[in-house]
Amino acid sequence: MENTLAFPAGRPRDFVAIGRLCIDLNANEINRPMEETMTFTKYVGGSPANICIGMSRLGHRAAFIGKIADDQMGRFIRSYLHDNGIDTAGVTTDRTGAVTGLAFTEIKSPEDCSILMYRDNAADLLLAPEEVDEGLIAESKALLVSGTALAKSPSREAVLLALRYARKHGTKVVFDIDYRPYTWTSPEETAVYYHLAAEKSDIIIGTREEFDMLERFDGNAAHSDEVTAAQWFGCHAELVIIKHGKDGSIAYARDGGSHRGAIFPAKIVKTFGAGDSYAAGFLHGLMQGWSVARSMEYGSAAASIVISSHSCSDAMPTAEQVDAYIETSQHA
Amino acid sequence: MENTLAFPAGRPRDFVAIGRLCIDLNANEINRPMEETMTFTKYVGGSPANICIGMSRLGHRAAFIGKIADDQMGRFIRSYLHDNGIDTAGVTTDRTGAVTGLAFTEIKSPEDCSILMYRDNAADLLLAPEEVDEGLIAESKALLVSGTALAKSPSREAVLLALRYARKHGTKVVFDIDYRPYTWTSPEETAVYYHLAAEKSDIIIGTREEFDMLERFDGNAAHSDEVTAAQWFGCHAELVIIKHGKDGSIAYARDGGSHRGAIFPAKIVKTFGAGDSYAAGFLHGLMQGWSVARSMEYGSAAASIVISSHSCSDAMPTAEQVDAYIETSQHA
Amino acid sequence: MENTLAFPAGRPRDFVAIGRLCIDLNANEINRPMEETMTFTKYVGGSPANICIGMSRLGHRAAFIGKIADDQMGRFIRSYLHDNGIDTAGVTTDRTGAVTGLAFTEIKSPEDCSILMYRDNAADLLLAPEEVDEGLIAESKALLVSGTALAKSPSREAVLLALRYARKHGTKVVFDIDYRPYTWTSPEETAVYYHLAAEKSDIIIGTREEFDMLERFDGNAAHSDEVTAAQWFGCHAELVIIKHGKDGSIAYARDGGSHRGAIFPAKIVKTFGAGDSYAAGFLHGLMQGWSVARSMEYGSAAASIVISSHSCSDAMPTAEQVDAYIETSQHA
Amino acid sequence: MENTLAFPAGRPRDFVAIGRLCIDLNANEINRPMEETMTFTKYVGGSPANICIGMSRLGHRAAFIGKIADDQMGRFIRSYLHDNGIDTAGVTTDRTGAVTGLAFTEIKSPEDCSILMYRDNAADLLLAPEEVDEGLIAESKALLVSGTALAKSPSREAVLLALRYARKHGTKVVFDIDYRPYTWTSPEETAVYYHLAAEKSDIIIGTREEFDMLERFDGNAAHSDEVTAAQWFGCHAELVIIKHGKDGSIAYARDGGSHRGAIFPAKIVKTFGAGDSYAAGFLHGLMQGWSVARSMEYGSAAASIVISSHSCSDAMPTAEQVDAYIETSQHA
Repeated sequence: MENTLAFPAGRPRDFVAIGRLCIDLNANEINRPMEETMTFTKYVGGSPANICIGMSRLGHRAAFIGKIADDQMGRFIRSYLHDNGIDTAGVTTDRTGAVTGLAFTEIKSPEDCSILMYRDNAADLLLAPEEVDEGLIAESKALLVSGTALAKSPSREAVLLALRYARKHGTKVVFDIDYRPYTWTSPEETAVYYHLAAEKSDIIIGTREEFDMLERFDGNAAHSDEVTAAQWFGCHAELVIIKHGKDGSIAYARDGGSHRGAIFPAKIVKTFGAGDSYAAGFLHGLMQGWSVARSMEYGSAAASIVISSHSCSDAMPTAEQVDAYIETSQHA
Repeated sequence: MENTLAFPAGRPRDFVAIGRLCIDLNANEINRPMEETMTFTKYVGGSPANICIGMSRLGHRAAFIGKIADDQMGRFIRSYLHDNGIDTAGVTTDRTGAVTGLAFTEIKSPEDCSILMYRDNAADLLLAPEEVDEGLIAESKALLVSGTALAKSPSREAVLLALRYARKHGTKVVFDIDYRPYTWTSPEETAVYYHLAAEKSDIIIGTREEFDMLERFDGNAAHSDEVTAAQWFGCHAELVIIKHGKDGSIAYARDGGSHRGAIFPAKIVKTFGAGDSYAAGFLHGLMQGWSVARSMEYGSAAASIVISSHSCSDAMPTAEQVDAYIETSQHA
Repeated sequence: MENTLAFPAGRPRDFVAIGRLCIDLNANEINRPMEETMTFTKYVGGSPANICIGMSRLGHRAAFIGKIADDQMGRFIRSYLHDNGIDTAGVTTDRTGAVTGLAFTEIKSPEDCSILMYRDNAADLLLAPEEVDEGLIAESKALLVSGTALAKSPSREAVLLALRYARKHGTKVVFDIDYRPYTWTSPEETAVYYHLAAEKSDIIIGTREEFDMLERFDGNAAHSDEVTAAQWFGCHAELVIIKHGKDGSIAYARDGGSHRGAIFPAKIVKTFGAGDSYAAGFLHGLMQGWSVARSMEYGSAAASIVISSHSCSDAMPTAEQVDAYIETSQHA
Repeated sequence: MENTLAFPAGRPRDFVAIGRLCIDLNANEINRPMEETMTFTKYVGGSPANICIGMSRLGHRAAFIGKIADDQMGRFIRSYLHDNGIDTAGVTTDRTGAVTGLAFTEIKSPEDCSILMYRDNAADLLLAPEEVDEGLIAESKALLVSGTALAKSPSREAVLLALRYARKHGTKVVFDIDYRPYTWTSPEETAVYYHLAAEKSDIIIGTREEFDMLERFDGNAAHSDEVTAAQWFGCHAELVIIKHGKDGSIAYARDGGSHRGAIFPAKIVKTFGAGDSYAAGFLHGLMQGWSVARSMEYGSAAASIVISSHSCSDAMPTAEQVDAYIETSQHA
């Protein structure tokens, strides 16, 4: 199964992400309920932020389009992105008193992790369409859209406009469904907007459950991966990746091929961030022109590195780290 | 300029409209400010309701998809539609205490008319996507979408889903932009959703100002009708009608043709309802297989009848009335 | 039972009311469901507005503190009050796009009347505390507070501040409970604010059901009028009037006396406005120094006049009309 | 200046507090901007919670009336209160998905401390009037009301009802103004509700700025402490304490006396919690029957202990600690 995806050549930027920027507060004392955790460590968080950091660590020229609160947390986010080599010119600052979204992690065991979210009045959801920089999208090879940014206006309209700009300029759209029930009003609303985003995307990544959400009004009662993939090839999609947790992922290509990728063994600390590092590693591979299979393997290795660490964003690996991990695993 | 629009054949229904159902309260004492108007007469109102009533009067099998309040006004609307031969199975009743939208008309002079709107907590904007009957759309030749129904959730999502159903089943989509600033949060939000609807439409009807609203992020600084039309021919549009008030309308066809239609002389009472009766008359012509020019003339005649009457919905003419009006005008 | 209520002497104004200003749209075709009513006549409405108009018609120097929409309905209200001799300097105009509250009346029969209310985004509920003119209250003998104005912020705070000003200046407070479920969040919320207003009132007027609402957290499980009255005599109340519909009203005085007033026979058109005209007639009597009994009779006569008319505000009688009515009734 | 305050005798409980329960996240790395703080320690917070914990540590039988989120933070709060000997039967659990209020502390220097608040959708503000346990108030000697609980409905109504219950049962009301701009809609709204609470209070504690807020509609342009105190002695107040920061506090008694208390020297870590520990120490003294002066000194000593510690709630001292502190200070 070849990688037939042709990213536009000769652009000054490889990657731009749009959506959530927030703070993770990770439990320092783990393997216990959060009630008994007394201290937390602060990290930049949010799925598109993690992927963007991952891409930058892997050597890509990356930028972000988003909105931060006018507070200490917001300023920390901007400077962390900047320190990681990400262009933050497209990150605007809220002036209405919105706050930074928070995610407290609870790690009862490697298999029993949960998140306590603070999403009320979150600054990232206030990104407005007129704040989306068309130029940043036009000069990038790929735009990553995170589904949570569609959960509420005006961020929803900002993303819908970003999708339009990407199609207008031939920028490849990567849609990471990233469904989280917070903020959405109803599953029906979710289905409508996920569908609109998927219609305009070149690569769609999600779990089986996320695709079910998106297909709420489409039939596919059997939850067939093939039916799912076929639907989007009728629009703009070239690759559809459906994740099945511990059973690995399946990639479908427009030309009919499919590939099932396995996961690497890892000493799991927590499962958070696995999907984000997978996405960064996979996209890195595609941008290198590697086969879909090799790109998936690279994503899996990156995911294994992150889930064996305490953080998500801060643990995103460099290419050297992923290469070393793959080599070590092959000799184990 | 031929009518190349092929409405799907063999369907049990000609026409289904989705969107606003409200009450017009028309001033009985006119040619004065509303402060001095003491009595009002009640009519069914709302642009898509008017067009649907017009289509039914012109002999088409019509249905409506919408939501009414659980009150006397809502019940009046349902029974008026029913009495006019419109299928109301797709009209649901709100149970949350929403009210019926109102429009008080002020007629200071035939040239100086305005509307005082009550749109807070309006039942029609509570139509939810899961309440949209796919079957009604699948069995109709055309779906009329009114832009005001995109102004607020969940009606917005209901319309976006209806558009998807229409494209899935090959039902022709007629998009009447019908911009009204009430309810919308910002012009940017309006632009995003109007654009999404226009992308999925076969026929788009609006004033020059309405197209400018829709094209906010698209360039076209010169407000060129040709540029406007061309943009939509790149999507699904086959006909784009741009209205220029007293200067008549211009229709552009995908094949490159265009036709400028004139307006009929009329003894104007008020200008309300002109666009709705025009739309009904024009669509009637297209469905008869008439040329675009003849259809536009028919729409203009229907419009002239309505603006010389006190009401909108109640004045929607039958085919006999329009024919008679055209004949009389030609001999005048 | 004497009238021991000492209104402050030597003030330039007799009466100021605070609260709801709205529009009644009264069915012209009556004795049928509203679905079949086709025309409506416009009147100024709202309980405190009606009482204020009544007081002015009965010869008192009256003023109003309230807020109107910046539209034709708002301007009609201001000019109608002004034309009825009421000082409107305390009536401010909303600039946020709020609308005028509406009340459509349905008169199925004299015994079966109902109201369809439009209270969303109503301008009268936007009266803010800083807009309450302390001077108007200081220079008036009595302040009438309508309970519906407590239903929502900031009107709620405006009324609470007006009550404080009245107590500070020795202006007698008349509290007309006027409970309407629209707008209130819960019966518990209603009970809390009604209680706060009653604590600061000199005269409290309400139906048995309204006093039950107010006493939700106070015991009085037997719904005893005596227990009700006694509670408020422990605060500032001097007169408590409990209305029992067709069974007439009972007035309790702080000194222990009570009087049961009867209602006049009337050819009833509708029951709306009975309470408002009763309140105006009763207060007129008290201000004349009449006994409580005579004041109640005068209120009843005024009520009978209004319920035999089509409107509320517009039917508020002059002293001559009430005198004539009483005389006619006594000879009948 | 004697302590003439007669707390009701023979009650099974000394103290019940109503209002905010939240989480403090205190910077572990201090003397720097929060942007550079990487870890935070979790404590129970909220002014009335701190005072209640302080009272319990000082040996009083204490209870709390409030509302917690149905999450890990809420459960931590309940168990911490319980472990500190506080009765939590009056603490209800939200079921609507509200979150626990958060306060991140920033300690740039002992003199430059600030708080980043998360108050959107906070569970404590959802306490409803019907959830206020009249019995708990009836059986306590004193009720502490924190002003922030008046900032939003339904907590606002819950507090207003609690005040009514306290007056009904002769429970002494201590009103800690505790003004924080978050959540309040306007200074005018604040002034109205603070005034209503102060009218029903026996002891009122606040800074000069807080009393100015409360007196917004009352004149006192000179910000005179004497005028402030006199106003409340006209209602129910027996003691009014006005805090002037580093200049110490002044207590005014209804009988005309006043006492200025000094502050203890302390090695300040941060200023948070000073007012809460002061309040606990001062009330402890009053309940012991000590003079106002001695009670104020005791409050100051308790405050000094807290500001030299990292936390607020967790640093609330026992009587032994305060006694030792006073003794050490006197010999220093």
